[in-house]
Amino acid sequence: ARRLVREENVRLRGERARTRVLDEAVKLLSVEGLGGLTFGQVADMAEVGKSNLQVLFGDKENLQLAALAHAIGLYQTQVVEPAMRKRTPLTRLRALMTGWFDFVETRQLPGGCVITAVSSEYRARPGPLRDAIQQYREAGRARLHELLREARAQGQIAADADEAKLVMELLAYQAYANVAASMDDHAEFGRAKAAAMEVLAKAAR
Amino acid sequence: ARRLVREENVRLRGERARTRVLDEAVKLLSVEGLGGLTFGQVADMAEVGKSNLQVLFGDKENLQLAALAHAIGLYQTQVVEPAMRKRTPLTRLRALMTGWFDFVETRQLPGGCVITAVSSEYRARPGPLRDAIQQYREAGRARLHELLREARAQGQIAADADEAKLVMELLAYQAYANVAASMDDHAEFGRAKAAAMEVLAKAAR
Repeated sequence: ARRLVREENVRLRGERARTRVLDEAVKLLSVEGLGGLTFGQVADMAEVGKSNLQVLFGDKENLQLAALAHAIGLYQTQVVEPAMRKRTPLTRLRALMTGWFDFVETRQLPGGCVITAVSSEYRARPGPLRDAIQQYREAGRARLHELLREARAQGQIAADADEAKLVMELLAYQAYANVAASMDDHAEFGRAKAAAMEVLAKAAR
Repeated sequence: ARRLVREENVRLRGERARTRVLDEAVKLLSVEGLGGLTFGQVADMAEVGKSNLQVLFGDKENLQLAALAHAIGLYQTQVVEPAMRKRTPLTRLRALMTGWFDFVETRQLPGGCVITAVSSEYRARPGPLRDAIQQYREAGRARLHELLREARAQGQIAADADEAKLVMELLAYQAYANVAASMDDHAEFGRAKAAAMEVLAKAAR
């Protein structure tokens, strides 16, 4: 039994170390992109040895994939889950949008939305990283479509609303706002946010 | 006189070498971003020695700035100048938009629009590169505003059109389309292009 407790303690220490490293890696990722995520830079920020990182993550690509997954987890906890607790599909959709813009504006991560940024960074570079990014994008897009379908089924949005166009518009305003926020272009950020909320309001009429 | 001819030849050879290197650098830049623009990579692609590159460009940042300027020059020749030869402000504006979408869709550069991509890449990294990117963005935005103002003055677009919102929408659709095109998401690219042209058509009513 004592051995089991010891093993459990080692496992927990490993997990805590991993989480602490990934918290720092995600901040770096949000500013520098996947290209800036090297063992050396992450080791400096998390104040751990480079060799420890290699034990925890294996190679650079694994570190990058783990950091992406960690960023998704953070966004899930801070934005998606609170939004999904709202009562109707339309209020969930609105909360999801407001939550995303707040997440970026209040710099929950110093460089804003990681998925929006790495989508642009890796768009033209096929491989496991782009595959992972596309899966995350697809999941986010599917969530928007599902909420819209539910809202339509409950009569909360117009039956003839162009769902695909609506989703494209929301994602386009997010892409633009993510750049504007980090460039401290508050007016353009506000315009993009207002346009996103207006698109939803119009569909709800 | 003979010495002058010799000097002129040396100068021309230098310019040709520079142009040839920058043509390759811009292709790389469009796919890998500014971060991928190292002397080593550019030397490989342009098939010149690394030390020659250092003579031509000095340091890495100078190479990056030169490649950005070269990308702008390319876009200027291929898209902006033909569009500006159209007869009215509104047809110039339309040609500028169509030209941008064609430039990206037909992969004039393998990774699409450089300025859209590096805007996302460097948004959160203050310094000379971000300053240069912001200047190019500002110039592009100013061109759109000027064409809209001229079109309004000539009664081609509605007097009450929200100019700032219109420009934001066009740039947001471009940001989204640039990612979609490189990810081979033709449906989403088409939606973004259609939305941009619709925005102009509505303002023209």
